[in-house]
Amino acid sequence: MTDLAAIRAAAARARGIRRTPLLSSPLLDREAGRRILVKAECLQVTGSFKARGAWAAISALSPAERAAGVLAYSSGNHAQGVAWAAAAHGTPAVILMPSDAPAVKIDNTRALGGEVVLYDRGSEDRDAIGARLASERDLTLVPPFDHPQVIAGQGTTGLEIAGQAAEAGVTEADVLVCCGGGGLSAGIALALEAEAPGLRVRTAEPAGFDDVARSLAEGHRVRNPAATGSICDAILTPSPGALTFPILDRLAGPGLAVSDDEALAAVAAAFRHLRIVLEPGGAVSLAAALFRGGEIEGDAVVCVASGGNVDPAVFARALSA
Amino acid sequence: MTDLAAIRAAAARARGIRRTPLLSSPLLDREAGRRILVKAECLQVTGSFKARGAWAAISALSPAERAAGVLAYSSGNHAQGVAWAAAAHGTPAVILMPSDAPAVKIDNTRALGGEVVLYDRGSEDRDAIGARLASERDLTLVPPFDHPQVIAGQGTTGLEIAGQAAEAGVTEADVLVCCGGGGLSAGIALALEAEAPGLRVRTAEPAGFDDVARSLAEGHRVRNPAATGSICDAILTPSPGALTFPILDRLAGPGLAVSDDEALAAVAAAFRHLRIVLEPGGAVSLAAALFRGGEIEGDAVVCVASGGNVDPAVFARALSA
Repeated sequence: MTDLAAIRAAAARARGIRRTPLLSSPLLDREAGRRILVKAECLQVTGSFKARGAWAAISALSPAERAAGVLAYSSGNHAQGVAWAAAAHGTPAVILMPSDAPAVKIDNTRALGGEVVLYDRGSEDRDAIGARLASERDLTLVPPFDHPQVIAGQGTTGLEIAGQAAEAGVTEADVLVCCGGGGLSAGIALALEAEAPGLRVRTAEPAGFDDVARSLAEGHRVRNPAATGSICDAILTPSPGALTFPILDRLAGPGLAVSDDEALAAVAAAFRHLRIVLEPGGAVSLAAALFRGGEIEGDAVVCVASGGNVDPAVFARALSA
Repeated sequence: MTDLAAIRAAAARARGIRRTPLLSSPLLDREAGRRILVKAECLQVTGSFKARGAWAAISALSPAERAAGVLAYSSGNHAQGVAWAAAAHGTPAVILMPSDAPAVKIDNTRALGGEVVLYDRGSEDRDAIGARLASERDLTLVPPFDHPQVIAGQGTTGLEIAGQAAEAGVTEADVLVCCGGGGLSAGIALALEAEAPGLRVRTAEPAGFDDVARSLAEGHRVRNPAATGSICDAILTPSPGALTFPILDRLAGPGLAVSDDEALAAVAAAFRHLRIVLEPGGAVSLAAALFRGGEIEGDAVVCVASGGNVDPAVFARALSA
């Protein structure tokens, strides 16, 4: 189980991880009608919070496990986080990616030191390939969210928010977190429970893919009807995790959902007012602050902007809307 | 005269100023062939380092001067810095802007609390209008660079770089600074002289507008042949300042110059690898690191990315190149 001690231990090991700034803008506050504090995880190494969980998981391995190597399934931010954290530990990393993943993500994962193994989504079984590789090479799987060390690593974001929000004079606020499988949301919720009990996590998801919001409302895990169909590709997961959901069920407030157009408008607002690059899935928390203000209470809100690995064409589309 | 004590005093007064991060990326390092550390002043309040100098100048005024108000001439980043810093001090700010300035800059300056007075560049004399306003309303002029407190305020960037570079293990390196009139470069040079003597400022300018580089080479102040004609509008000034040049002449290494296309390519590299938004004039330091590597010595280089207030169409152009 992940707890505050595990998160603190992950933070103590996280020498390669950047303490990202908590940004704000008077003009953004004016647009939202309340203070907005943005935790800019797009400025994290590899461009998303995923580096935190990957570092926590790999740094917790035994020397023998670390020497043998790790395995991850991902077409996106988790792949880059694991490739980078493994390289920093001198650990081999095999990243299993679909052959139709964007070339830039495959290239970046390789450039960060990952050994990319491609599979055909239509004809090959990813899990079978992964199991064979893991068994043959004695690799340890680093899952994207449902893993105690991964949750602990993402929770280090929450320790930083607790300190930075207090410095900004904010001790009572909703903390909106872009949410896929719930690793980041759950980790932050655990950290805030102990370090800043006036700050409450609320998940932000794309409309139609709000499995966490609906699971929280129903009190048990439910699935999304579809697997794809939102521009927020980074945070599309079928259902909350077995480990993450109980944490969120205990600690998080009601979930929020935004449209793709609202996510793109938040990307543009972050460009204009904060001069940071967000991907749509990393901007749904800010979109919720801008477009679901009526569902939020308090004079201030914290938005965790989870990543910025965005295709230039998608970014240009956000700016021209 | 600005000296280390003045810079330290400005830092001690700078409670509204953000300590911006020193960013890096393994993939950017690979592109440049050496470590690149980017001081992200685009993340400063109002989107550029100009907030620092404005804060320093306004916070140094007497209570009577502060009550009467300040005046600035600017169509860009200095306008927003002064408007914001004045509002934070409860000081009226009159910003004299050309009537053909981009609407978004006029709007932002007003939204930050500035009283914008427009003049016609073709038919009206800016200095005469400014002198009349200053006299009628007893306003104190806050110049964009050639002013001891403004240089001290920009120098607070250098104090931060000294500490952050040391933390990153870098004590010997060129520090490339985007340079218009030289306030930021001179301030940083003074701070580094005392706090990090192995770090040396070098100015970065647009080709054809490299008055500082040529002045340094010739040992006296020379002017640019043209006033406009580069996409790097934020840093086009006719010549180095009377106060800034002697500082740079004593402390800075040879200046560097880059083309507009190189500046745009650096904007795209910062988008891709650092997930920050730079304006072309704020990216010439990074452009010099990427495209003038042969003129730089050492395993690491620090680039001060001075601002990120960029038109969406210009940014989209950088991404599509």
